Amino acid sequence: MKLAMIKRGDAPCLVRVDQSGKRYWPVADLAPGLPGDMAGLIAALAGGAALPEPAGAGEALDPADLLAPLSNPPRNIFCVGKNYHAHAREFAGSGYDSSSTSAADAIPKAPIIFTKPFTSISGPWDDIPLVPGLDAEVDYEAELAVVIGRGGRCIPKSSAMAHVFGYTVVNDVTARDLQGKHKQWLLGKGIDGFCPMGPWIVTADELQAEAMRVTCTVNGEKRQDAVTADLIFDIPTLIETISLSMALLPGDVIATGTPEGVGIGFKPPRFLRDGDVVECAIEGIGHIRNTVRKADPVALRGAA
Amino acid sequence: MKLAMIKRGDAPCLVRVDQSGKRYWPVADLAPGLPGDMAGLIAALAGGAALPEPAGAGEALDPADLLAPLSNPPRNIFCVGKNYHAHAREFAGSGYDSSSTSAADAIPKAPIIFTKPFTSISGPWDDIPLVPGLDAEVDYEAELAVVIGRGGRCIPKSSAMAHVFGYTVVNDVTARDLQGKHKQWLLGKGIDGFCPMGPWIVTADELQAEAMRVTCTVNGEKRQDAVTADLIFDIPTLIETISLSMALLPGDVIATGTPEGVGIGFKPPRFLRDGDVVECAIEGIGHIRNTVRKADPVALRGAA
Repeated sequence: MKLAMIKRGDAPCLVRVDQSGKRYWPVADLAPGLPGDMAGLIAALAGGAALPEPAGAGEALDPADLLAPLSNPPRNIFCVGKNYHAHAREFAGSGYDSSSTSAADAIPKAPIIFTKPFTSISGPWDDIPLVPGLDAEVDYEAELAVVIGRGGRCIPKSSAMAHVFGYTVVNDVTARDLQGKHKQWLLGKGIDGFCPMGPWIVTADELQAEAMRVTCTVNGEKRQDAVTADLIFDIPTLIETISLSMALLPGDVIATGTPEGVGIGFKPPRFLRDGDVVECAIEGIGHIRNTVRKADPVALRGAA
Repeated sequence: MKLAMIKRGDAPCLVRVDQSGKRYWPVADLAPGLPGDMAGLIAALAGGAALPEPAGAGEALDPADLLAPLSNPPRNIFCVGKNYHAHAREFAGSGYDSSSTSAADAIPKAPIIFTKPFTSISGPWDDIPLVPGLDAEVDYEAELAVVIGRGGRCIPKSSAMAHVFGYTVVNDVTARDLQGKHKQWLLGKGIDGFCPMGPWIVTADELQAEAMRVTCTVNGEKRQDAVTADLIFDIPTLIETISLSMALLPGDVIATGTPEGVGIGFKPPRFLRDGDVVECAIEGIGHIRNTVRKADPVALRGAA
């Protein structure tokens, strides 16, 4: 099942999308008693509510109307650093990695978990803003994001997959200079608009978590291409690790890390520039495509 | 003005507390049109609403009824690492500091910002839970926490203090082994119940941010005693730095860092043990007092 948020008229609308991605039914029509926001719906479904099968042809989906499927997770998005073998080595060798000091510790021995706040989330076609002071070393990171259904504390690996509601695609956009300068990664990773997400959430029953192909192109040139089988810490391990420290909640998002091929993996690094088009895709889910655009800092200040 | 959340009957209740800390008035009685939760009230006051002066004697406040004053900030709490000169040196010398590799970089050149999720927040008298797997190296960190009123992006230092709504006390409880092992600090810092907060929020007009005395005792023995004048990055700098990356929101919390005297500052380290009583206090605000207690992991799993 695909669940999406779309712009319908002037309002956001939670919808079920058909297999082809071309037709939709508003959840409010399918089940008037269920919440109308994605986080609320996930919590309801995780708690045992059911979403009736759609009847009829539904309405035609204009892809341009797709919004970020989950813009209000209950907490900052959990993100995993250096979680593909080849990427861990490229990052450790880039000079930007404050978490390792030698080639010997390039591969982490425990998951590296940081966060991006909900305010960084943007839609599948939204621009990635270049703001003065944050624009010198902006980089892309295509990632599989796990959406938690049923919550829980101290979840063992063996039952972890039962807590996965579904999956979506994110770009963990990063200002590398800030990531390095501030040691902890929030300020370089949590920038407003630095987490494009979409195009929808595909429920866990339709996908094989360990066999998804993650790709990223910049201006049509392939930069990243890997399979989730190469994850250093797989999804059950991430769930076990995070839920030891804190109860997971319905709607929590875990971005599982990015494969080799980011901009700082090149020598010299290839940072994103005004006008670049970044497309992140995962087989079985879909793609998001975002254009890098200079943003007006005066307008930003006014909007806050 | 002091604002608190208290248990009143069986429900949480937002109240204004008098100067003495002994009498209170429910905000719902003073201003029925204003939100009944702290984050909502802060947003309303930051947006120009006014809280009328109380009339009459109010009701007697039983300190035992005090809850965490702000349990639902809009995002994970922003926390600052290594932000007092003496503490930065003790931490860099402790062997637990993955952010510095030599004495030369003990004092950070830019603020180190990480987060604790709202689920780590607990009340001013709540127990600090010792959970198997997280209980070996638990440490205290008394801190001044800034509560943001009016939000904004790209806030310059010169006007930053106008965005401060008030202050409260937090204990940034930390599992040092996880903090080190996971490199990024979320999992060692964001543990459920690892952010006692209170006893209330005191509005900014009543305090001098740069001259507050922060103390911590463990079982009555003084461990931390410093003045906020020793902050490496002062409050205007923190607000300028964070708001460059993202718009600050009403109700955001910034825990400004802890002074010298944490458990890992001792040789050998003095970690918290079952039954220890930790009291964190700030002059002009008040104190929180929390007992360290073994928690039952089976009960935790059931509660999630």
